[in-house]
Amino acid sequence: MKKYKKSDPISYTLGTTLTLELLNKKKEDITAIYIHSKQEQNETYHKITSICNDNHIEVIYNDKIFNILSDKENCYVIGVFNKYKTHIDYSANHIVLVNPSNTGNLGTIIRSAVGFGINNLVIIKPSVDIFDPKVIRGSMGALFNINFTYYNDFSEYYDLTNKSHTYYSFMLNGKCSLDNVKKDERYSLIFGPEASGLDASYLEIGESIVIKHSSEIDSLNLDNAVSIALYEFTKGNFK
Amino acid sequence: MKKYKKSDPISYTLGTTLTLELLNKKKEDITAIYIHSKQEQNETYHKITSICNDNHIEVIYNDKIFNILSDKENCYVIGVFNKYKTHIDYSANHIVLVNPSNTGNLGTIIRSAVGFGINNLVIIKPSVDIFDPKVIRGSMGALFNINFTYYNDFSEYYDLTNKSHTYYSFMLNGKCSLDNVKKDERYSLIFGPEASGLDASYLEIGESIVIKHSSEIDSLNLDNAVSIALYEFTKGNFK
Repeated sequence: MKKYKKSDPISYTLGTTLTLELLNKKKEDITAIYIHSKQEQNETYHKITSICNDNHIEVIYNDKIFNILSDKENCYVIGVFNKYKTHIDYSANHIVLVNPSNTGNLGTIIRSAVGFGINNLVIIKPSVDIFDPKVIRGSMGALFNINFTYYNDFSEYYDLTNKSHTYYSFMLNGKCSLDNVKKDERYSLIFGPEASGLDASYLEIGESIVIKHSSEIDSLNLDNAVSIALYEFTKGNFK
Repeated sequence: MKKYKKSDPISYTLGTTLTLELLNKKKEDITAIYIHSKQEQNETYHKITSICNDNHIEVIYNDKIFNILSDKENCYVIGVFNKYKTHIDYSANHIVLVNPSNTGNLGTIIRSAVGFGINNLVIIKPSVDIFDPKVIRGSMGALFNINFTYYNDFSEYYDLTNKSHTYYSFMLNGKCSLDNVKKDERYSLIFGPEASGLDASYLEIGESIVIKHSSEIDSLNLDNAVSIALYEFTKGNFK
């Protein structure tokens, strides 16, 4: 067991809640569940071991892996799973992240996307690794509820979806304010990298949108901008 | 020089952009600016040293402090400043955070608050330390644009503002959906701790509001919930 690397074929859920999400959503990809000697034999413990038992998932009692993989003191359960492939649903609405570079942002974006019912995520490379344990933690396990596909560049994705989706590019110099935007039925919400945002070429792709704010900040944090857009585009959908 | 502690009377801006914000907004509180030998003598360098020179701020060329205070490789400028006190403006709109515990969340909340023109932040203790360098970094320097006051409990704040503000408590079981809320002219937007949210007593304080989302997540991340609320309450204010 070594520290997580992007090139590893496996990844980890660090903690009880995340591991329960993994057990509920991706049983078939799990290779083992590790339990620390300090884990109490409480309700959650029995839930975890019972799911493992029912599904022939190996439970390993071993403390060493926790020192290697987790820097949190109270992490007493770890799930190990094979990285899996998913495919986005072309008939659904999409979030498109161009070159996201921050694990925490990617995690909370996934959490908000699932929260607002957009379960299809397009990632344009280069990108942070979606299976990084920090992304999984940031997503609070919502990662296991989404479809995602990587593309090498935006045009690859564009060519596949051109006729079906309206593109909304979020940019500081977008032409339409988010609160005035006409929302089409089938859409892709596109966001640029944390440091620079989308380049000017995206002004010509579909509708460009700005989330207006004061001049006292340069921009919103990426996960906040995405969450605001998700809220505005999906409001009224949840009762 | 030691690693930052909450009890220290001073704090730090780690990096060029944050230090420039500090120099522009809080000159009077700065005790020194440190510059690393790897810092290029570029435009930003000349800007920083010239502000320091004009304002009699000491510039220290010393690499050691960078190893102690920063874990980022490309941090070549550090600002040292005395922690200062501010007072919220009682006639303005407020964000109220009850027991926030995460430095990253507090930083990005401050960034969004300043972005949406709510520059007065109430913090109910116990709380993460607003001067933690990680909060400053998360705020991208927006910390230097806000007023903030700590209170020992909510009733202390409530008694001071009772007649002037409408309270909107954000809760998973809030009675009114955010997209239907009637926004009063003078308001406080209140948010609970990351792990548990506001307790049931807040249902009786002013209006309780829910940001509706799917049942696939338990809740939104705190900074995303606050940013969505800020967007909804202030939209139309920025041109």
